[in-house]
Amino acid sequence: MYIEKQKKMTKFGKPPGELIYTGKVEPSNAIINVISYSESSYEEYDNVEFEFLDKLNKDKIHWVNFINVSDKTKLKTFGEKFNLHKLTLEDIINVNQRTKVEFFDTYTFVVIKVFRDLYEKLEFRQLSIIAKENILITFLEENNYTTDLLKEQLKNNTGNIREKDFGYLIFSLMDIATDSYFSRLNSYISSVEEIDAKMTEEVEEQLFINIKQLKQEILRFRRFVFPLKEIIFQLQRKKDSFITEKNELYYMDLYDHSVRINESIEILRENLNNITEIYLSIVSNRLNEIMRILTIISTLFIPLTFIAGIYGMNFVYMPELQWKYGYFVVLGIMVVIAIIMIIIFKRKKWF
Amino acid sequence: MYIEKQKKMTKFGKPPGELIYTGKVEPSNAIINVISYSESSYEEYDNVEFEFLDKLNKDKIHWVNFINVSDKTKLKTFGEKFNLHKLTLEDIINVNQRTKVEFFDTYTFVVIKVFRDLYEKLEFRQLSIIAKENILITFLEENNYTTDLLKEQLKNNTGNIREKDFGYLIFSLMDIATDSYFSRLNSYISSVEEIDAKMTEEVEEQLFINIKQLKQEILRFRRFVFPLKEIIFQLQRKKDSFITEKNELYYMDLYDHSVRINESIEILRENLNNITEIYLSIVSNRLNEIMRILTIISTLFIPLTFIAGIYGMNFVYMPELQWKYGYFVVLGIMVVIAIIMIIIFKRKKWF
Amino acid sequence: MYIEKQKKMTKFGKPPGELIYTGKVEPSNAIINVISYSESSYEEYDNVEFEFLDKLNKDKIHWVNFINVSDKTKLKTFGEKFNLHKLTLEDIINVNQRTKVEFFDTYTFVVIKVFRDLYEKLEFRQLSIIAKENILITFLEENNYTTDLLKEQLKNNTGNIREKDFGYLIFSLMDIATDSYFSRLNSYISSVEEIDAKMTEEVEEQLFINIKQLKQEILRFRRFVFPLKEIIFQLQRKKDSFITEKNELYYMDLYDHSVRINESIEILRENLNNITEIYLSIVSNRLNEIMRILTIISTLFIPLTFIAGIYGMNFVYMPELQWKYGYFVVLGIMVVIAIIMIIIFKRKKWF
Amino acid sequence: MYIEKQKKMTKFGKPPGELIYTGKVEPSNAIINVISYSESSYEEYDNVEFEFLDKLNKDKIHWVNFINVSDKTKLKTFGEKFNLHKLTLEDIINVNQRTKVEFFDTYTFVVIKVFRDLYEKLEFRQLSIIAKENILITFLEENNYTTDLLKEQLKNNTGNIREKDFGYLIFSLMDIATDSYFSRLNSYISSVEEIDAKMTEEVEEQLFINIKQLKQEILRFRRFVFPLKEIIFQLQRKKDSFITEKNELYYMDLYDHSVRINESIEILRENLNNITEIYLSIVSNRLNEIMRILTIISTLFIPLTFIAGIYGMNFVYMPELQWKYGYFVVLGIMVVIAIIMIIIFKRKKWF
Amino acid sequence: MYIEKQKKMTKFGKPPGELIYTGKVEPSNAIINVISYSESSYEEYDNVEFEFLDKLNKDKIHWVNFINVSDKTKLKTFGEKFNLHKLTLEDIINVNQRTKVEFFDTYTFVVIKVFRDLYEKLEFRQLSIIAKENILITFLEENNYTTDLLKEQLKNNTGNIREKDFGYLIFSLMDIATDSYFSRLNSYISSVEEIDAKMTEEVEEQLFINIKQLKQEILRFRRFVFPLKEIIFQLQRKKDSFITEKNELYYMDLYDHSVRINESIEILRENLNNITEIYLSIVSNRLNEIMRILTIISTLFIPLTFIAGIYGMNFVYMPELQWKYGYFVVLGIMVVIAIIMIIIFKRKKWF
Repeated sequence: MYIEKQKKMTKFGKPPGELIYTGKVEPSNAIINVISYSESSYEEYDNVEFEFLDKLNKDKIHWVNFINVSDKTKLKTFGEKFNLHKLTLEDIINVNQRTKVEFFDTYTFVVIKVFRDLYEKLEFRQLSIIAKENILITFLEENNYTTDLLKEQLKNNTGNIREKDFGYLIFSLMDIATDSYFSRLNSYISSVEEIDAKMTEEVEEQLFINIKQLKQEILRFRRFVFPLKEIIFQLQRKKDSFITEKNELYYMDLYDHSVRINESIEILRENLNNITEIYLSIVSNRLNEIMRILTIISTLFIPLTFIAGIYGMNFVYMPELQWKYGYFVVLGIMVVIAIIMIIIFKRKKWF
Repeated sequence: MYIEKQKKMTKFGKPPGELIYTGKVEPSNAIINVISYSESSYEEYDNVEFEFLDKLNKDKIHWVNFINVSDKTKLKTFGEKFNLHKLTLEDIINVNQRTKVEFFDTYTFVVIKVFRDLYEKLEFRQLSIIAKENILITFLEENNYTTDLLKEQLKNNTGNIREKDFGYLIFSLMDIATDSYFSRLNSYISSVEEIDAKMTEEVEEQLFINIKQLKQEILRFRRFVFPLKEIIFQLQRKKDSFITEKNELYYMDLYDHSVRINESIEILRENLNNITEIYLSIVSNRLNEIMRILTIISTLFIPLTFIAGIYGMNFVYMPELQWKYGYFVVLGIMVVIAIIMIIIFKRKKWF
Repeated sequence: MYIEKQKKMTKFGKPPGELIYTGKVEPSNAIINVISYSESSYEEYDNVEFEFLDKLNKDKIHWVNFINVSDKTKLKTFGEKFNLHKLTLEDIINVNQRTKVEFFDTYTFVVIKVFRDLYEKLEFRQLSIIAKENILITFLEENNYTTDLLKEQLKNNTGNIREKDFGYLIFSLMDIATDSYFSRLNSYISSVEEIDAKMTEEVEEQLFINIKQLKQEILRFRRFVFPLKEIIFQLQRKKDSFITEKNELYYMDLYDHSVRINESIEILRENLNNITEIYLSIVSNRLNEIMRILTIISTLFIPLTFIAGIYGMNFVYMPELQWKYGYFVVLGIMVVIAIIMIIIFKRKKWF
Repeated sequence: MYIEKQKKMTKFGKPPGELIYTGKVEPSNAIINVISYSESSYEEYDNVEFEFLDKLNKDKIHWVNFINVSDKTKLKTFGEKFNLHKLTLEDIINVNQRTKVEFFDTYTFVVIKVFRDLYEKLEFRQLSIIAKENILITFLEENNYTTDLLKEQLKNNTGNIREKDFGYLIFSLMDIATDSYFSRLNSYISSVEEIDAKMTEEVEEQLFINIKQLKQEILRFRRFVFPLKEIIFQLQRKKDSFITEKNELYYMDLYDHSVRINESIEILRENLNNITEIYLSIVSNRLNEIMRILTIISTLFIPLTFIAGIYGMNFVYMPELQWKYGYFVVLGIMVVIAIIMIIIFKRKKWF
Repeated sequence: MYIEKQKKMTKFGKPPGELIYTGKVEPSNAIINVISYSESSYEEYDNVEFEFLDKLNKDKIHWVNFINVSDKTKLKTFGEKFNLHKLTLEDIINVNQRTKVEFFDTYTFVVIKVFRDLYEKLEFRQLSIIAKENILITFLEENNYTTDLLKEQLKNNTGNIREKDFGYLIFSLMDIATDSYFSRLNSYISSVEEIDAKMTEEVEEQLFINIKQLKQEILRFRRFVFPLKEIIFQLQRKKDSFITEKNELYYMDLYDHSVRINESIEILRENLNNITEIYLSIVSNRLNEIMRILTIISTLFIPLTFIAGIYGMNFVYMPELQWKYGYFVVLGIMVVIAIIMIIIFKRKKWF
């Protein structure tokens, strides 16, 4: 399949704000995990109740992770708890959103795409991010490596992440996503190399289809990864956001990475086009060579067969047939004709 | 047919403002329906007279639906009633307008395209929208699902539409149109998937023509849907319009949808191009294979036939003919030659 | 021929301002016609003398039509009469100008292209327009439908043209030109439809050349029509011009038309490209089918001919030849081989 | 050869400002000619000494023409005389500059390209222009038609050039260059017409190579001519330059010409692409026709030869052979088969 | 291989600022060389200790060259010495950066790419440049021609470099890099010329692959060289940087060079595309010619062989066989048929 169907259809004629899950994950109950930390403290709360969320104070940085957005009821209650606009909730549960950023009065809403699995077939999952004062809220369709890795960094205080500010937390999350884009990109580069290596050995229809499929997949990859650059740019431009003087360099770095990813995708595409052209040229060359040689063989024998046909006629009076060495003379003539033709073909560099 | 002829020709040399219907619908008498509502009330008036329109007061929101724009006389009177510019009237009745928005002193004029029928062959109908203070006027070529659905929403107060403001009413209308674009888009995606699935089974000229026709249709679809994004953008930018702080988020959502539609169209087009290339490659591969094998068969037999020709000559003195096992020797030689050729062809991977 | 040679060459090395006619019309004497009108009056003066031009007062709107710009002497005197810059005069007589607008201190200079004839082969004539206070001056290479139609409108006061202002007069002229573009466009659309219909019936080299020629012609058409949009935009932006609050809506309408023409041209071009691809594909498919079937016939008979060749050999000892039913056995074997081959080919879907 | 090697290599590792001639003209001694004129006077000074240059006063307009820039020593002294920056001098002697304009404190530096010869193979020569107060300095690689023509205009006071201001002098020089671009363009248009005419007669490999070479040459032509538009635009935008109210219309005219040249180049390129496609299509059509007819001939005879082969077999018992009219029956059958095949082929429109 | 894998993967999940060398050079100990100079003095210090760096005073211009960035420990200490941001250090050691410029509070950071070797296969090395007050710091993956040449210029005071300011030093470094781009470009131009020359002689699959490889390599070259223009533009726009009124002309020159390089790359690419098309056309023409002639030979003999087959039949009653000159008559007929066919083919210009 090439592009996700926009599952809006099931909603056709209904007003906006209707919460309908449009993803591919089997629906199940939502789980809400919270991590609260400051420079000196670190606490993890798994599967908390809604009441717990009221107690998130301003002293610490809080990260609320909402897993399984398909749970419509809980999502709705959750949304009311944090005063999220119903269009935001719709965008969270309708997981066919574009990669985008939206600025609301009290929060910033970012949608990015992460992989369902790092090494498997390309399948995207939507990661919705809400930054509200000192609280980071993430929404996942199902448990995902991105938040697992962020949790680990917080737990181990890698890179002194707990001593950095709120904006750095969000940066870390997006950095993990970007790193996984790089990793996926590398596997595409490997695939291209592999195809390139195979090409001179075997030229089969399958190879061509592989090239085309890779092209399609990179097209899909590009679709969600490409706008990342624009999003970071918009975040940077926005005043009074979580991007501060202290962490703006990190976001510049992120921007740089997103530009590099986009560039690499473009180069990959150009390479695939190049490979396609080479493939098509090799295929046609190979066929041409076969046809040429086969045709040359035919052409060599056709005049000789004609001569044999002549002397196979049953005319009563054919003087040559009576000659003692007529047969050998004719054989000789045939050999001579064949040799002459071969010489001519050779000279004309036809084989 | 590919593009609508611009029916202006019948008007050639005439000054602007001349009202000539240029659509494909059988002309018939205009019907004017009115719905008036406020938070607490809801009234429907079908097939009203012109006098009725004078009584539309400022207390409620009014929606006037003018069906069958081909009725030139009524349209003219109607236009005078609401002080519409004669160029606006011309754009309403000449239904070959581009999707566009125009701002007049006392009203805003929007032209969008809706489908004649949701599931049938792509055929567009023009939906002209006029927003004037608290009155929404819609002009249709014939009765259409868009206004039917809006009426239903108002009747059932779906999504509390009657409690929202005037701008939300217009948003709802455009949202219904956008939803139908999504639905049409989905059917194109299905068609592409279908073609894609068929491709490996049967490669016929018809398939190629289907691909091309789909491409043409998407081209037409794109033509009217593409400018939607721009229109919403212009509406948003316009000050003192019906887009207020209360409903601007809905328009942002609409803008987002229109961007997503455009993106999907572009991806569909890229996919169709890809499929075309794969199709052409498969066709040529298949032919090449047939020709190769056929040529190989010919090439195998031609030297053998030549040998048979040799011994079919009627020379008086051909020693081999007298040998007791000459015949079998020659047969053996032929078999050997055939085997050698097959081995050579195999080694060269010619089949 | 594809593009007009820029006839500047004959002027090579000469300073600018030199008046040399570069068009294709047979030079003849200039004719100057004047129409003066106000709301209440309408006068026509054909073939006036230069002195007459001094009497054009400010009370009425005057339209001076200069026919046959090739008349260098008269043009020069005329230019001096109206204080036209010598570069303007050069642009009027050197009719290879681009469609353009230029603003001078005392007048506005517009160059557009009209057709020599509405229904014949595409040939452009330059229509130079000068708007100076209340005087519209038009320059033609030869008599043309554009001014004829405008004259008729004025005569009959169609659309109350005589009651409108000066800007509306110029609008009317450009509207007539635009209408003729639409009409030409329609004939291109018809040609494309015709080619499209023919395509499935007969695929001949001529059809391909027709497609290409149509493409070339549309290219030329586009060249002069495309900038129209830009010109109207510039006229609209210009302050203190003949575009007033009263007539600006008409110019907006004109702008809209020019955008629609450009869009249609682009779609036509895309369609022609599509048709070209389909044509090429049909041609190659048809050839492939012929070659495939012919090759299959050859391949069927070659092994059979070989067998006949075997039993045509003259070996003294060939046991089969002596069998009573040898002949029929061989015939039977041949039939069996042919059937088997046909079955194999059928199964492989080779025909 | 396709593009000029950037002869910087010989300078590799050396600091900027080093004067090395990189053109193709045989180096020779520089010649400095001066023309001084005012409305009432005109003087020519050929091959002047450096001292002479000190005496150029402000009363007249002076044009200093420096021929043979390869003369490094003289150029250096000359540069010091006029306070030219050493990077300017480097750009003058390294004649591989792009067409460009640079504004220095005391002078304006323009680089354009002129043809070595108007009618010969496309070869560019660099014309460096310096406008300094009332002095125009031109630098040539060798004597060139551009300055010859300007000199003639000054001598004969064509177009009252001596009564115009300094900016008009520079305009005249650039106008001559532009005129020569038009002339070159015309010869390209002729070449395209010629190729177009030849195409239907003879389709040879050479023609294709000619098309491609013409394309390459136009590519090179375009490279140096394309930026002209930009340069004139920059000159116009620059305040306090030699473009005054009195001559700005001439520069607008020049700008217009440069736009027209660029447009024509683009159309030429599109035409060449079109011609290439038609050429390729004709070639392939012609080949296809030959192959089709040849294959049809083969296919006609193969079954007949098979039948003849049947009755050439030497079976002892072949009843048909004994029939009195067997031979004629077989001949008749052959004719019938041939006719049936021809009819089938005709019906299928295979020839 | 086509594009460098982004070696970020090894860092996946780690926070930014981690120093991991990602280049291809064998890691070894860092070497720090310092050159200090003023107008009157010049000192070289090889392989200095860290303490030495504290003594770099403001009186002179200092150039610190850090060779072998893979030495993580030394790089870290070095970074602390000069207060470099840890993201800067990461960009220096992760040598897969894009060509870019970043402005920090106390220093400017530029990344450009130089060749590992001027004449060998294209392999890039990263050259990181830091400009901090009067200190230029360069970071190399391994010893490189760029810094060697700069050192030589300083030593010999070529172009009075020691009398120029700090900005000129940086300019000189970038000028050397740009010169090497020109030199590489020239070798590509030579390769294209070579391929072009070979093309008419031998058309082999290898040639096509060479063209494609050259295209790929130019693609890679372009990738790192293209942004140079943008970087110089950004440096020029930046206020209070090392670009002063005194050296800004040099940077303008550099900008001009970078534009010229980009233009040449684009033209090279267009040329390669042209060559590819010519190549493909020649290949297909040549094959077509062979196939045509071979098919003509076959077609000539097939009817003749058929006639021979006729008279090879063994019918008892075949009158012609009994004719005395039957044999010669048939031979004559064959010759006549062959001649007629040849004439027809000739007339149709089939060979």
